[in-house]
Amino acid sequence: MTLQNDRLLRAFARQPVDRTPVWLMRQAGRYLPEYRATRAVAGSFMGLATNPELACEVTLQPLRRFDLDAAILFSDILTIPDAMGLGLSFETGEGPRFARPVRNAADIARLAVPDMETELRYVMDAVRLIRRELGGKVPLIGFSGSPFTLACYMVEGGGSDNFARVKALALDDPAALHRLLDVVTESVIAYLAAQRAAGAQALMVFDTWGGMLSPHLGKGNAPYLEELAASGAEGLGVDWTVSLADARSRTGGKVAIQGNLDPSTLYASPDAIRREVRRTLDSYGHGPGHVFNLGHGLSPDMDPEHVRVLVDAVHEFSARSQP
Amino acid sequence: MTLQNDRLLRAFARQPVDRTPVWLMRQAGRYLPEYRATRAVAGSFMGLATNPELACEVTLQPLRRFDLDAAILFSDILTIPDAMGLGLSFETGEGPRFARPVRNAADIARLAVPDMETELRYVMDAVRLIRRELGGKVPLIGFSGSPFTLACYMVEGGGSDNFARVKALALDDPAALHRLLDVVTESVIAYLAAQRAAGAQALMVFDTWGGMLSPHLGKGNAPYLEELAASGAEGLGVDWTVSLADARSRTGGKVAIQGNLDPSTLYASPDAIRREVRRTLDSYGHGPGHVFNLGHGLSPDMDPEHVRVLVDAVHEFSARSQP
Repeated sequence: MTLQNDRLLRAFARQPVDRTPVWLMRQAGRYLPEYRATRAVAGSFMGLATNPELACEVTLQPLRRFDLDAAILFSDILTIPDAMGLGLSFETGEGPRFARPVRNAADIARLAVPDMETELRYVMDAVRLIRRELGGKVPLIGFSGSPFTLACYMVEGGGSDNFARVKALALDDPAALHRLLDVVTESVIAYLAAQRAAGAQALMVFDTWGGMLSPHLGKGNAPYLEELAASGAEGLGVDWTVSLADARSRTGGKVAIQGNLDPSTLYASPDAIRREVRRTLDSYGHGPGHVFNLGHGLSPDMDPEHVRVLVDAVHEFSARSQP
Repeated sequence: MTLQNDRLLRAFARQPVDRTPVWLMRQAGRYLPEYRATRAVAGSFMGLATNPELACEVTLQPLRRFDLDAAILFSDILTIPDAMGLGLSFETGEGPRFARPVRNAADIARLAVPDMETELRYVMDAVRLIRRELGGKVPLIGFSGSPFTLACYMVEGGGSDNFARVKALALDDPAALHRLLDVVTESVIAYLAAQRAAGAQALMVFDTWGGMLSPHLGKGNAPYLEELAASGAEGLGVDWTVSLADARSRTGGKVAIQGNLDPSTLYASPDAIRREVRRTLDSYGHGPGHVFNLGHGLSPDMDPEHVRVLVDAVHEFSARSQP
């Protein structure tokens, strides 16, 4: 099946494109009334994520509304620990929760890499179904949380203001944390490989919590662009606290740059949104290697019509400025 | 009255000291049982902050327990907007709330610089009383929120995940936001000058939310150390996402550096705390200009005995390493 719109893949390969490709983190989500309707049918977030037909439906919803250049698998970054037996749930307004967090070396020793085609089959089934339903219209992005981010959630049992438990573990029993990171890393590699085999055409690793580490304990993002550009990834997502011009010059053309409009821009007027889109495109400048995105995901209280203004402005302004 | 311990002031002046001075953000706070007892007497957080005798009492409590090199006024960064009539309260577990946030140009036009010796007299009375009670033992630090941080809270009406309202205002009516920043800046200057006149021997500006801005809208911290070093401040506080060695070399000896132990280190064992204190001191290296602190405040669930380990380790290791 031929891919009709390959802007995203070309941009990640740093090849010329006719318009800057654009997709948005959480483009399938609660800001869309049709998402909320499907979510109500599913009964719970995990009910939605583990049902390939419904996950496919919500993945495709934003593409029916907006001229987006990619679909992204509807799922959650915490499916791997859930498949490891930690018992994932989402309480309303509370974020993710694990019924059985891992707290010590004994808990960690019991963990094993999940089988991708049985314990995580629902993800691979969703990838296969979405690929079929997309019919080559745009590429499908698969994803995983980073090993460190998954380890944080697994040790804390959910989100955290200060990551007290995982930081105490890092200082008091670094060998145990390394074993945890090893089994999670193996799982992430297997998970992304399985998504690729099932049909995902691009893969993204979300390192939500890497930025809270000290330099001697690990890596964030904006302070570490040079190191991350050498990681082997084709592209690097950055948020709005760094300018695209800086990110581009600091990574020296070795990777594509994805980002980085502040999502709160969507609370401003359409005129301001268009102005900020243009500023973001100008900040990257001419030449290949830019994938337009937000610096963080869309929020439930955002106006879908403002999202349309953003997507259309990316194409309008970048088409003008192509050579 | 002679100051018996002037390590803090000497370090900020980048003069040699016999041991690295140490104080801790939120050293007067809920992790101390004696604080919780005084807070219960006061009835509410604002009841405590607006009562000079009780504010003095909780300011002095950590100095009775630990060998700290400075006291910091017990107060809140939001006293200025409260004095402007916004109606500050703290709901349990909810953080600060304003009854009357400012949302538009009309709200902003009604704001005026508060009178420091009437509307904020309780703060100045607390400063005078604490100075008297300290009897020259250690210097007293006064403080204010930064104009931008205060403006964020005033527009949002409290804390925020995404600062939707203030960012929309910045994009849709920048002139109104500038007027807000002007009146708040004037107030902050008057507030700090009044604290100095009342006896504060050092002044700190907390820019809690500056880091969430795009480079073209404003300033964060770690990415902007060079610019901040030219601000006229004697010292710069940094968090643990930048190393002290980096912060020191990037600011070229123009300012003292305050920081930067990750407060979550206090959840680890005493051995690990001592190791991390030593690493932090080593990261700054020899020579004057270091004020030891955390990169963020203490949390209510921290163990006072671990705080003692930290404070004592700073003095022990830095005394050894002085020439």
